[in-house]
Amino acid sequence: MSPVPEPDLNARAPARAPASAASGTHRPRLSSLGLSPGKKTRLKRLLYDHGPGGGTMLVLPIDQGLEHGPIDFFPNPDSLDPRYQYELAREGNFSAIALHVGLAEKYFAEFAGDVPLILKLNGKTGIPSDAQAFSPLTGTVEDAVRLGADAVGYTIYVGSPAQDRDFLQFLEVRRDAERFGMPVIVWAYPRGEAIAKKGGKESLYAVDYAARVALELGADVVKVNYPVASEKDAESPPPYSTLHLSPDASFRKVVESAGRALVLVSGGEKIGDADLLRKVRSSMDAGATGIIFGRNLWQRPKAEALRLTRELHAIFAEYAQPAD
Amino acid sequence: MSPVPEPDLNARAPARAPASAASGTHRPRLSSLGLSPGKKTRLKRLLYDHGPGGGTMLVLPIDQGLEHGPIDFFPNPDSLDPRYQYELAREGNFSAIALHVGLAEKYFAEFAGDVPLILKLNGKTGIPSDAQAFSPLTGTVEDAVRLGADAVGYTIYVGSPAQDRDFLQFLEVRRDAERFGMPVIVWAYPRGEAIAKKGGKESLYAVDYAARVALELGADVVKVNYPVASEKDAESPPPYSTLHLSPDASFRKVVESAGRALVLVSGGEKIGDADLLRKVRSSMDAGATGIIFGRNLWQRPKAEALRLTRELHAIFAEYAQPAD
Amino acid sequence: MSPVPEPDLNARAPARAPASAASGTHRPRLSSLGLSPGKKTRLKRLLYDHGPGGGTMLVLPIDQGLEHGPIDFFPNPDSLDPRYQYELAREGNFSAIALHVGLAEKYFAEFAGDVPLILKLNGKTGIPSDAQAFSPLTGTVEDAVRLGADAVGYTIYVGSPAQDRDFLQFLEVRRDAERFGMPVIVWAYPRGEAIAKKGGKESLYAVDYAARVALELGADVVKVNYPVASEKDAESPPPYSTLHLSPDASFRKVVESAGRALVLVSGGEKIGDADLLRKVRSSMDAGATGIIFGRNLWQRPKAEALRLTRELHAIFAEYAQPAD
Amino acid sequence: MSPVPEPDLNARAPARAPASAASGTHRPRLSSLGLSPGKKTRLKRLLYDHGPGGGTMLVLPIDQGLEHGPIDFFPNPDSLDPRYQYELAREGNFSAIALHVGLAEKYFAEFAGDVPLILKLNGKTGIPSDAQAFSPLTGTVEDAVRLGADAVGYTIYVGSPAQDRDFLQFLEVRRDAERFGMPVIVWAYPRGEAIAKKGGKESLYAVDYAARVALELGADVVKVNYPVASEKDAESPPPYSTLHLSPDASFRKVVESAGRALVLVSGGEKIGDADLLRKVRSSMDAGATGIIFGRNLWQRPKAEALRLTRELHAIFAEYAQPAD
Amino acid sequence: MSPVPEPDLNARAPARAPASAASGTHRPRLSSLGLSPGKKTRLKRLLYDHGPGGGTMLVLPIDQGLEHGPIDFFPNPDSLDPRYQYELAREGNFSAIALHVGLAEKYFAEFAGDVPLILKLNGKTGIPSDAQAFSPLTGTVEDAVRLGADAVGYTIYVGSPAQDRDFLQFLEVRRDAERFGMPVIVWAYPRGEAIAKKGGKESLYAVDYAARVALELGADVVKVNYPVASEKDAESPPPYSTLHLSPDASFRKVVESAGRALVLVSGGEKIGDADLLRKVRSSMDAGATGIIFGRNLWQRPKAEALRLTRELHAIFAEYAQPAD
Repeated sequence: MSPVPEPDLNARAPARAPASAASGTHRPRLSSLGLSPGKKTRLKRLLYDHGPGGGTMLVLPIDQGLEHGPIDFFPNPDSLDPRYQYELAREGNFSAIALHVGLAEKYFAEFAGDVPLILKLNGKTGIPSDAQAFSPLTGTVEDAVRLGADAVGYTIYVGSPAQDRDFLQFLEVRRDAERFGMPVIVWAYPRGEAIAKKGGKESLYAVDYAARVALELGADVVKVNYPVASEKDAESPPPYSTLHLSPDASFRKVVESAGRALVLVSGGEKIGDADLLRKVRSSMDAGATGIIFGRNLWQRPKAEALRLTRELHAIFAEYAQPAD
Repeated sequence: MSPVPEPDLNARAPARAPASAASGTHRPRLSSLGLSPGKKTRLKRLLYDHGPGGGTMLVLPIDQGLEHGPIDFFPNPDSLDPRYQYELAREGNFSAIALHVGLAEKYFAEFAGDVPLILKLNGKTGIPSDAQAFSPLTGTVEDAVRLGADAVGYTIYVGSPAQDRDFLQFLEVRRDAERFGMPVIVWAYPRGEAIAKKGGKESLYAVDYAARVALELGADVVKVNYPVASEKDAESPPPYSTLHLSPDASFRKVVESAGRALVLVSGGEKIGDADLLRKVRSSMDAGATGIIFGRNLWQRPKAEALRLTRELHAIFAEYAQPAD
Repeated sequence: MSPVPEPDLNARAPARAPASAASGTHRPRLSSLGLSPGKKTRLKRLLYDHGPGGGTMLVLPIDQGLEHGPIDFFPNPDSLDPRYQYELAREGNFSAIALHVGLAEKYFAEFAGDVPLILKLNGKTGIPSDAQAFSPLTGTVEDAVRLGADAVGYTIYVGSPAQDRDFLQFLEVRRDAERFGMPVIVWAYPRGEAIAKKGGKESLYAVDYAARVALELGADVVKVNYPVASEKDAESPPPYSTLHLSPDASFRKVVESAGRALVLVSGGEKIGDADLLRKVRSSMDAGATGIIFGRNLWQRPKAEALRLTRELHAIFAEYAQPAD
Repeated sequence: MSPVPEPDLNARAPARAPASAASGTHRPRLSSLGLSPGKKTRLKRLLYDHGPGGGTMLVLPIDQGLEHGPIDFFPNPDSLDPRYQYELAREGNFSAIALHVGLAEKYFAEFAGDVPLILKLNGKTGIPSDAQAFSPLTGTVEDAVRLGADAVGYTIYVGSPAQDRDFLQFLEVRRDAERFGMPVIVWAYPRGEAIAKKGGKESLYAVDYAARVALELGADVVKVNYPVASEKDAESPPPYSTLHLSPDASFRKVVESAGRALVLVSGGEKIGDADLLRKVRSSMDAGATGIIFGRNLWQRPKAEALRLTRELHAIFAEYAQPAD
Repeated sequence: MSPVPEPDLNARAPARAPASAASGTHRPRLSSLGLSPGKKTRLKRLLYDHGPGGGTMLVLPIDQGLEHGPIDFFPNPDSLDPRYQYELAREGNFSAIALHVGLAEKYFAEFAGDVPLILKLNGKTGIPSDAQAFSPLTGTVEDAVRLGADAVGYTIYVGSPAQDRDFLQFLEVRRDAERFGMPVIVWAYPRGEAIAKKGGKESLYAVDYAARVALELGADVVKVNYPVASEKDAESPPPYSTLHLSPDASFRKVVESAGRALVLVSGGEKIGDADLLRKVRSSMDAGATGIIFGRNLWQRPKAEALRLTRELHAIFAEYAQPAD
């Protein structure tokens, strides 16, 4: 079932064969993104030099300790120690690990050079209400430069009544990133009391809108959730309220809305393997550049996580494209 | 019906013949605006060197993906890809295209030099309530300079309870624009719970007030909606509550309130061609400098959009004036 | 009825004869105000070199388009064009014209050197509620310096629940004005839900308090309304609730509270000529330095406005004092 | 009754004889306060070179025009003119006069060198509710340096729900004061809706807490009210709710809580002379450094105020200590 | 009962014998923390050169005067004078004393070099509601450097609706600390209306989450409360709602969540000695680095406090490890 050999941690990602003409055709090419030399240099490391390569991205996030609390580590107690995720990222040959400054300063040195770092720049606890969700800065682009990161991550809560502060905060991040040639990955999350009344945060309306907002505001990469159809879609504005697209078509719509922002699919809560892999293929077929899966990987014992990682590598190999 | 030849994209806007004495007499002349050399240089490009020329302006905005979401692209699926609007702007010989920093950084390079850029500097999603509308910055005047833009756009929500933050934010934009010689186009939009109780955002009271606010705050150009009479006008303060002006007279009133700020008419939602062209003529007769039409153009197939564009060029030619 | 010859616009204000011992005795002398050389130089232009001179001030404000909207220009349609007020200020030999940055940048050049400029630095629309009134910056002291202004104007909404932001904003204006030697004229306006419960914004309690606040915060000149007695005075704190002063005595009280801040009387809404001139004499007798009348002047046809202006000049001549 | 000769305004404060061992024993010595040279130099002027001297302080505040309005000047109409207080401070040989920047810039020059200046840096009107009391800056430490002040005054509203903004604003004042060697006098006032429910702003609980807050936040001198026992004390947290200390013991408690911050007692509203002098002795016995009395002094005719001032000098002489 | 000799205040902390293999095994080693030279130098002073040494920390906090008011000093009136705690820290050979800038500037000089200083950088009064708890800055990292402090303390109210301002404020502190090589100790306190509904601030859910937040945000040391099981745990999210861990196991969980942030246990309100010492052993067994006990120490007479301190030293000696 897993046609790919175990990754060799000491080796760089191999040069990939050209992708079949049929796959990944919607995926924007790195050379088409209008990137500055600094951004291109760093993104190329994530897309070609680490992880599955071939222009794809496999990212391991570990910011759930802040967003949800240690609660997420119960299914796999080993995962409470951040070294677990770092080791998984190295052994599983991930394109990058994404986390906040505290976990970078205290744990990254041992893995520096082996695992690229995406410094997550804002976050919040899940304790207060999300009605007016806003995610304050926990780090800066300068921190990312100092720590040798290859990208920064920023959460925009699209549709939150606090969008004014959010956009202004992001503006400074984007400008610093421009100044330092640091790629910006936007976690584009619909959130807040207003979106809840228009079909909810998982609706196609919400996810589609979020992808476009990230593009317009200057994201280089956008992380989106896979939209989930439900009867609440009827509360979305038309024509979303009556679209009834298939999951594949829905996600393709989102990728198109993201335009020249590369798309990463969020894993979300842990789901079954078959569903997970179907979601990955669907995403990559639609033109996604990769995935950012946390709980679906590190909530398992490491051997099992690595087995799944190998399956992901195998899938990604089918979508590999040579660097341009 | 369309007496104007198809625009030649490789050619600069031709020198126009003097306008007839009867047309456009209310339109302020560029030389009367007290502009700095930088502002004059850039505005001249929009008014004479690109687009219909002769002191008129035909602007294609594409910020609806942020303001309304991808929802606006359903009528013409091609329009979801920002290249569609860029190409339309080039093929239709528009005076400029107006959009946010993300669409500029990712797509403008291919069109640079062909289509002047108006960098829209603030925006918001349409998801939360507009009761206290405020549009946070998404870009800066420095971004505009860096990207080679010829003007910046800024939305002021006139009458919003958040006007204090809005004015302060605009102050910084205006000062930076002064410093860099960058023309400022103000989207002067009445909005918020207070205006809703005084006749609504489309009332003459509201639009007229908005035009004057833009002038007093330092706009070089002001984009206004064409006021719409309704029974809600009775809730406007006197004498607006009982004015009952014709549409033409209403708009002429607005242009006069804008004083030496050049006036662009907003297209608003898509309407029928006859109504649209009547609105354009009415506006230009009243002294408007041009139009800024988005959905009415790119929600059509390109051939149809270009046909309409040619009609607009033809009308504008009637209002052309030589540079002063 | 008008003993003063029409002002000659090309001439500087003539040196005035010493005032009679009886008039204007409460008015502070320029030399007693502890002003820096820059402030003194500029104030002297307004008090002696332009307008009626002799230490008096006749100011034409045109910020109503922002504060009230174009609504104020209906009584005299010519007044919608800012050139109308500029011309009136020049032809009527006013001490200065007071307006926002937009009207300065677009219209002042033609009148520069003829009519001194007071750049109004903050303002707001009258659309939202005044319960928590706050007037955000529309310009800066640096703008005033750049534009050749001789003073800046700043509105403090005394007693508003937003006074904290107001004081802090004014602090920066005052410090910049100190740095550049620019006189500060404070529009001291009682406003907001709290003052409404203590006798209202026109009560002696409110106006008297406002004058003192301007003095304590560092105003060089303070613009106040003429207090209006009403039955609502009973809601003012004692002893104001039972004072029952005559209008003359009320205003004299306010001038005393303003101390060494020169006092300008606000015109307010348009009233009859006899009432207006009585108000002027009462104010000057009480020690006011001058008046700042807008609607009472430019809501009339120009000939009528100039006739009234000549009457004002005649009155002011009675209160003229030689420069010290 | 007044054993002290009228102060000679041209003389410096005389060197005092050592205090009796029994008096003022709780008062911290200047040398024990860990002050920087700049702070020590300036405080020494207030404690030894001006006013009653001998390490005591007699301060005349005149910020009531801002805090309460001109209402406070009715009992003695002369007091409306700030020169009245300046002259009283000079004739009465006060240690300093405390006021806002406007009264300093417009009136201080004439008294500079004769009367030390304490520049009050924040204030507010008494018009809106005090439920969330906050006192915004009206001046800066730099203003104080420029004006030749020997200390700055800052009001902290202890217990106000706005304490977050207050502490942050004070932080900047304290740091600037550190940088310029400028002593900081904190008006430590319990205020706001929360303190109102815990015994009120005059309770021992409230005043005692306020004194400690000033010490912890870095005050050099703290101005407190004399606590007033009432049945509302029962609402204070235990053990305050059942303490029932005598006035003397209550105030001694407050002085102890202030630690090495010198204590000034506030005069508050005008009270009878006997009560006033008893309050002064009680305070000085408890270890206070001096008093800051406004209305109790300048709400009287000057002759009467000077008579009372002489009595205060006489009392202070008993508590004089040589400089250390 | 106390096997340890009285500490000699003139001596540096003695070199400790290696710890038994069984104790303190969970405690992170200084060399594993990825600290900059400045941070390591200063932390080493607290862990090895002062106090019980051997990599442990015994901290005396005295910020209760600000957080709770002088109310906390009633049980031991001597404790109202900050010298009491300074002397206790010196005589009891504490690793450090933790307090705000006012108590440092006014009292620290006499103890400088003897007792290391932890400058507490933010605080608030306990007077207003804690529903939206936020602790504003009272000092800066620069203050800490200037005063010779060896660490800074910062309170994060985890889960407060004001977390956005809190995180942003902490960000600046963390960055300044990075710049100056100053260790950051985070008081990680669950607080606010949201946590109150999820089991309360003492629940394992709350304390565990708080520890992780401190780690992710970049704390070098985290101060936590010992979690207290109660029936309110049922309101915590699963699995916390049904965990029912022993106190020892609960605290071990918290230490693990803190990862490479060293853990200090908070003393909280005064409890019996047996309970206190049991809590200390439990904490140290779980991998805590030390304790930060205030009221449990200085609310006693000094002799008694020193006796207890000796017992604490004795316990800590069992957990001593050589410097690495």
